[in-house]
Amino acid sequence: MQQRFETFTVLIAKISRSIRRIKAEEMSEFHLKGPHVSCLYYLTQLGPLTAGQLCDRCEEDKAAVSRSLEYLEQNGYVTRPDKRYRSPLTLTEKGQETGRAIAGKIDRLVEAASEGLTPEQRQVMYDALTCISGHLERLAAPRKSQNGETDL
Amino acid sequence: MQQRFETFTVLIAKISRSIRRIKAEEMSEFHLKGPHVSCLYYLTQLGPLTAGQLCDRCEEDKAAVSRSLEYLEQNGYVTRPDKRYRSPLTLTEKGQETGRAIAGKIDRLVEAASEGLTPEQRQVMYDALTCISGHLERLAAPRKSQNGETDL
Repeated sequence: MQQRFETFTVLIAKISRSIRRIKAEEMSEFHLKGPHVSCLYYLTQLGPLTAGQLCDRCEEDKAAVSRSLEYLEQNGYVTRPDKRYRSPLTLTEKGQETGRAIAGKIDRLVEAASEGLTPEQRQVMYDALTCISGHLERLAAPRKSQNGETDL
Repeated sequence: MQQRFETFTVLIAKISRSIRRIKAEEMSEFHLKGPHVSCLYYLTQLGPLTAGQLCDRCEEDKAAVSRSLEYLEQNGYVTRPDKRYRSPLTLTEKGQETGRAIAGKIDRLVEAASEGLTPEQRQVMYDALTCISGHLERLAAPRKSQNGETDL
């Protein structure tokens, strides 16, 4: 049981770190950082989105997404009619090109990362991770709301 | 393909965050933080270890482990004959009790987190994650060594 905990948390920590590192290294040629890449990626995949919709997708906090959008706008990757939270962002020509280049890199990385796994094994893994992620979110949530009420 | 990348990275990010949150909340009753818990956990599981051995196990950086051990020693959880890096740390009576309590919590959390998965599904998931983690570490490593040499 404890062996399982150890294996799982260490695996997740290692994978997280590798993803962060690869993202940073791969994207340095574009002079973009993690949250910039996430924003460009989702705008490429899904078309115009508001800052709020990007926050939901990116799993980044609002402040990080705001700063990223500011940067992407100033550097000519995205445009928006005005600065309001509900105003949708659109990729410029430069943004579209970069988005396509990023998507190509991601394809090659996903291919390399999942080499040797059958589609069935991948599916079982995704289902299991989705199941565990759901359980963990529920386990984390009530604790959060009890915070400060009790020290037990 | 890109759907897969998104699903995988978002799942890993969510699980990471939940684990961090649960660890912090569960351990606040002991007035311990993440790296403290990891150190106590491994000392309980494996017996006396040096700071170096704990670093390898904990997937935390040396400075964080050093600070944790300092804290655990000052608060009477561990003792060591001297402060050298190679000197093994031993749990005190208080450290052993806390370690057992933590192990019990971990057992219950692992049980709850993996509810609904068969042993076979879990095994496929572990094998797939181990495989992906290995690929990602190799993908991250050469980039790291090239860092600064080229902007391509």
